[in-house]
Order: sequence, then structure tokens, then C-alpha cells
Amino acid sequence: MAGLFISFEGVDGVGKTTQVERLRAYLESRGRTVVTTREPGGTTLGRAIRRLLLYGMDAGNGVVDEHDGSVVDIAPRAEALLFAADRAQHVAETIRPALDRGEVVITDRYLDSSLAYQAGGRELTAEEIRELSMWATNGLLPVRTYLLDMDPSLSHARLTHAADRMESAGNEFQNRTRQAFLDLAAGEPERFRVIDASRSIDEVWASIRTDVDGLLLRERRDGENGEESA
Amino acid sequence: MAGLFISFEGVDGVGKTTQVERLRAYLESRGRTVVTTREPGGTTLGRAIRRLLLYGMDAGNGVVDEHDGSVVDIAPRAEALLFAADRAQHVAETIRPALDRGEVVITDRYLDSSLAYQAGGRELTAEEIRELSMWATNGLLPVRTYLLDMDPSLSHARLTHAADRMESAGNEFQNRTRQAFLDLAAGEPERFRVIDASRSIDEVWASIRTDVDGLLLRERRDGENGEESA
Repeated sequence: MAGLFISFEGVDGVGKTTQVERLRAYLESRGRTVVTTREPGGTTLGRAIRRLLLYGMDAGNGVVDEHDGSVVDIAPRAEALLFAADRAQHVAETIRPALDRGEVVITDRYLDSSLAYQAGGRELTAEEIRELSMWATNGLLPVRTYLLDMDPSLSHARLTHAADRMESAGNEFQNRTRQAFLDLAAGEPERFRVIDASRSIDEVWASIRTDVDGLLLRERRDGENGEESA
Repeated sequence: MAGLFISFEGVDGVGKTTQVERLRAYLESRGRTVVTTREPGGTTLGRAIRRLLLYGMDAGNGVVDEHDGSVVDIAPRAEALLFAADRAQHVAETIRPALDRGEVVITDRYLDSSLAYQAGGRELTAEEIRELSMWATNGLLPVRTYLLDMDPSLSHARLTHAADRMESAGNEFQNRTRQAFLDLAAGEPERFRVIDASRSIDEVWASIRTDVDGLLLRERRDGENGEESA
């Protein structure tokens, strides 16, 4: 058995964590071993990298100079390479070994988040970020990606403690990121399922469960036929 | 003026630091502004990355797990991406701005060290490492690379406090790395100058100075002719 690799994507506040837990419980109830993980920072090295990326963030996207305490900007290419290093370690240390054991891996964010967040409005193209990620992961893509999608003004309402601080600039950024995710989904309809996340938790979960049942059926059929289809 | 970018390469103990300083003093005496720098760890971010790479090195090439204190291996792709992130920051923060100001940048190690050290005997090819570095640096290569070359058994003798610990395995590694550098030099004869570093410091420096005088002459001629040649 080759394992099953599933990712969840979407802007903050759409309910990814809740649905990841629902899916984990469902698959475990069906006798599967499930690893849930996340990016960035799914490994010890990844968390150290994440601290580098966040350090000094309050004063801009920088690190504090060790000599004079000034904040140095992290160059866009350096930032993209650090995210890719985090992903490379995540795949090599956590994801691929679990898949090799035939387990299910569910990750909260994967390379599509890099594409949606890093490639928008920077000096780097989506194609460059994608190539970097594909090299970092040695070409490992999820068999299924659930994009939890809703109007950002609704998802803000869920992030109650963040809602006060939201500015119209933040809303614009969320709208742009949402559209970037939808464009990615349109480009890979086989891998993505766009889930309307503005509904109740139970309704959202019902959509995911129906699709997952199809995945499990296909996996069993492939197993019986000696895995001739993907 | 477009600045002058020079790198020094070679295994440890061949005298790079001494020659970098000689070259700096010489160019400053000729009225140039010189920035000397090094890899890995030429920037604050780079030094933080370097600590990640070295952390736990005593117990293998790993990081110490924050929960159980066990040592986790850094995956080869993650390691290569971290070196590339260091280089990307080094170019963006230090090297390119100095070159844009028309200054001379002399770096102790650059991408050839990644090729000679990382690509040997790992799961990654030299071509992959080169592509990663070229992306990280946005294609910036030195106009001249001095490869200080000598028989590793002689260079060991110079690293007196390290000499006792040298094993035959270490010697084999040094021999392989030396050959990797020589192969790189043979592949790019325009950029590289192989300098016999087994001679006296003064003799080595005389070889470098003669070549640098040629570079400066060419730079002046190019400036007068509106920079028509490389």
C-alpha cells in the first residue's frame, strides 16, 4: 500500500484545523493510521527556520542585525529558499516515511500556500516558486487538495480576536490570495476540490467525506488491480 | 563603473584568508573601495542559517529535536536549500549593492564551494546544485575565481592544531574535494585561475597580483570603450 497524501489549503480562518481533525477521526475509525501535520514548521528544523522568518517581523520582514541591532530585510529569494528548505525537510522527515509505511498524511497547507502567498506581488513568478517546491519535495504532490473557500469578509468574522485589527488593505490582500487559490484549483481540477466553506461545519465535512469515500474506493480498486491507475 | 567581483576557492588550509587580505591591501593602495566577505555566514541571516546547519553537528548532520532531545538528520535537499538561502541573502544584501556602487567585492568561498563539497557523494547532482545557486544569486558569477590548489597532505601541515586529528578518511575526502575544484576550473577556464598554493605566500601573491593587474587593465579599457566586452 502506497499511503494517501491529502492537503488542506485556504486563507486563515476558513476552518481548516477543524476539518483536518474531522477527517483524521473519520479515517482512524476506518482503521487507518493517520499523521496530521502542517506547514510552515512541521519539523524541528522547520520551526527553527520559521523563527528566522518571523524574527523581527514586527519591524518589517527582517532579521535583527547581531552587531548594531538594526533590522535587515530578508531578500525575496532567500525567503523563498527558506520556505522550500522547510518543505524539503517536512517531506523527507515526516511525509514520505509515513506514506512509505502505507499511512495517511493530512497536511494543513503545502506548496499551494507558497504559490498563493509568495508569488503574489513579489519579484518572483509562480513558475519559479513551483519549480523550487517541486525540487525541494522531489516531485511529491498530494493525491487530493481540499481548498476551503469563502468570502474573506465572512472568514474574518470567525477570527474574532483578529477581526478588530482588520483594515481594508488586509481585506484586499485576503481577496487576492483567495483568487490565487481559486486559480490554482482551476489549473489542476484532478487534484483540487473547491469546498464552499461558508456553510456549517457539518455541511463542509459532508462534502469532504463524500469525496474521501471516493478516494478510498479508488485506492482499494487500484490495490486489487495491482495499482495500474494513479 | 560596474564593480569587480572576485572569489577565492580551495580546501581549508591553503591560505585563502592571507591572500584575500593581500589583495584587499593592494587594491586599496590603488584607490579602490574593497569589501571582503565570506560564505557561509556572510550576513546576519546567513550566520543564523549557519548555526542551524552546525547545530547538533557533533552528533551527525542534524538538529536536536525540541521535544525529546534526539538528533534529527537534515535532509540533503533541505541542506542545499539552506546554503542557497544564505547565498541569496549574501548577494542581495552585501555583494550586489557594493558592485552597484562600483566597489570591489572579494569573497572567501562562493558557489564553487557548494559544487565541490555538496555535490560529491550525495544524492544530489552538481547540475542541480548549480541551478539552485544560479537562481539564488539571480545569475551573479565572479569575473575571476582564484583556486588555491595544493596537495592536501601539505595543506594539513599548515593547519597545525587540526593535523593531529587527521585520519586517512579525512585525507581521501580532501583529495576528492581538491579534484572537484580542479574539474570545475577546467570547465570554466575563462573565469578560473588555478594558483599553485604550495609555494611561499609571496610567490602565491605575485601570481595573483599579475593576474589582477590584467583585470584592472581590462576594466579600464572596457570603461574607455563604453564596456563593449565582458
